[in-house]
Amino acid sequence: MTYCVGLRLDRGIVFASDTRTNAGFDNIATFRKMHVWERDGDRVLVLLSAGNLAVTQAVISNLNEQIDAHRDDGEPSLLNVETMFRAARLVGEAIREVKKVDGPELEVFAASFILGGQIHGEPPRLFQIYAEGNFIEATKDTPFFQIGEHKYGKPILDRVARPEMGMGDAAKLVLLSFDSTLRSNLSVGMPIDMTIYERDSMKLGAQRRIESDDPYFRKLSRSWSEGLRDTFGRIESFEMSEDATAPLPFGKAKA
Amino acid sequence: MTYCVGLRLDRGIVFASDTRTNAGFDNIATFRKMHVWERDGDRVLVLLSAGNLAVTQAVISNLNEQIDAHRDDGEPSLLNVETMFRAARLVGEAIREVKKVDGPELEVFAASFILGGQIHGEPPRLFQIYAEGNFIEATKDTPFFQIGEHKYGKPILDRVARPEMGMGDAAKLVLLSFDSTLRSNLSVGMPIDMTIYERDSMKLGAQRRIESDDPYFRKLSRSWSEGLRDTFGRIESFEMSEDATAPLPFGKAKA
Repeated sequence: MTYCVGLRLDRGIVFASDTRTNAGFDNIATFRKMHVWERDGDRVLVLLSAGNLAVTQAVISNLNEQIDAHRDDGEPSLLNVETMFRAARLVGEAIREVKKVDGPELEVFAASFILGGQIHGEPPRLFQIYAEGNFIEATKDTPFFQIGEHKYGKPILDRVARPEMGMGDAAKLVLLSFDSTLRSNLSVGMPIDMTIYERDSMKLGAQRRIESDDPYFRKLSRSWSEGLRDTFGRIESFEMSEDATAPLPFGKAKA
Repeated sequence: MTYCVGLRLDRGIVFASDTRTNAGFDNIATFRKMHVWERDGDRVLVLLSAGNLAVTQAVISNLNEQIDAHRDDGEPSLLNVETMFRAARLVGEAIREVKKVDGPELEVFAASFILGGQIHGEPPRLFQIYAEGNFIEATKDTPFFQIGEHKYGKPILDRVARPEMGMGDAAKLVLLSFDSTLRSNLSVGMPIDMTIYERDSMKLGAQRRIESDDPYFRKLSRSWSEGLRDTFGRIESFEMSEDATAPLPFGKAKA
């Protein structure tokens, strides 16, 4: 299983992905799911992938071959398109290409991507690209995308994510979302790859592979658990005394 | 969509279910998903249902017809079996019966149940019953079951649920789990039906239908959001300064 998050802020974008892939619970391996293309001063593109590893690797390979093939001939590739929208379309086309080749042999064609970054002349943009090759873009209302095992980590993002957050707070939030996911689904696994893109920097920002013994992550996880339990303890209990409540409108079968 | 929780404590069991059913987003209705059988001083059984409404209603009807048919002839029904295990088996058999009749016409046969309660001579027990008719029982290690849209509400249960909790705290916890689910999935809907069974009482305890304007639920939801944000704010940010971090082991494609 996979869990990846992209969070677009006013100040930039935070990307994170887990690194576990499995083909059954007895065959687990670590693969990176974060892919970067960069041209200093001109563009930074980060692509997070979820789904069948053979499919997602084929998509990445197609995109890289396209870059090599079209370095000089003017045909589009991730390193020369002029907008993030065009870049997202290239990823979608690469997915459709792989689907054409491998899809008929596959029972399930599973692949989804988060593409974010900035190309000179545009603000930073963030897209989610589906297995069908079409895509949606993040907005102020919903500034994040998740792919893979997304449900456990969504409540905290729903409550806290705001475009005006600082990058450090956003990184903390994304790691908390991972913490919830890791606790509830064992097949999403550490380490976590995290990278930051700061708006208008036109180069990749700080990157980090966060291992399971990372002191910050361990402290974050512990502080969050303690804080949740404290908050829980401070809220008054729900006492349903028999006489204080209206009975439910259901008939009881009585002997 | 549906969300139901059963939480077995040392002191009894808390049951809760939402009440929304839908056949597409433009056809939403309220149905109760909590069903009770009771014989004062002898047994209390509570059944929560998720899945195709036609299937789950047929299962309940079969169980009720069985009670009427076997009131005097000694054949087993929910009101005369001697253990909760036997009761769970009856529910499983009812599911298989419905599957035999309606299953072949259905593209997906979706049904799952939580059965809990107490029969004289046994401690309270809690089961999750699958569409296949087989079932598992809650233990001290995992004292709760969820059916339906279970992922959003699982992290808080994982962190806080303990068999030794008081009933009021457990009811609060279950409502928090609903709050997270309701925020993230619009097709799980208020009101929430909640009922409490207190160990060895041999009668159904307090029951409540919690509407969306319920003052306790609104306050709980608000206090929890504020508490989470406070806790979030108190944890230090994750600052990834470029020089303090080891770069990720990925090659960047550079032009």
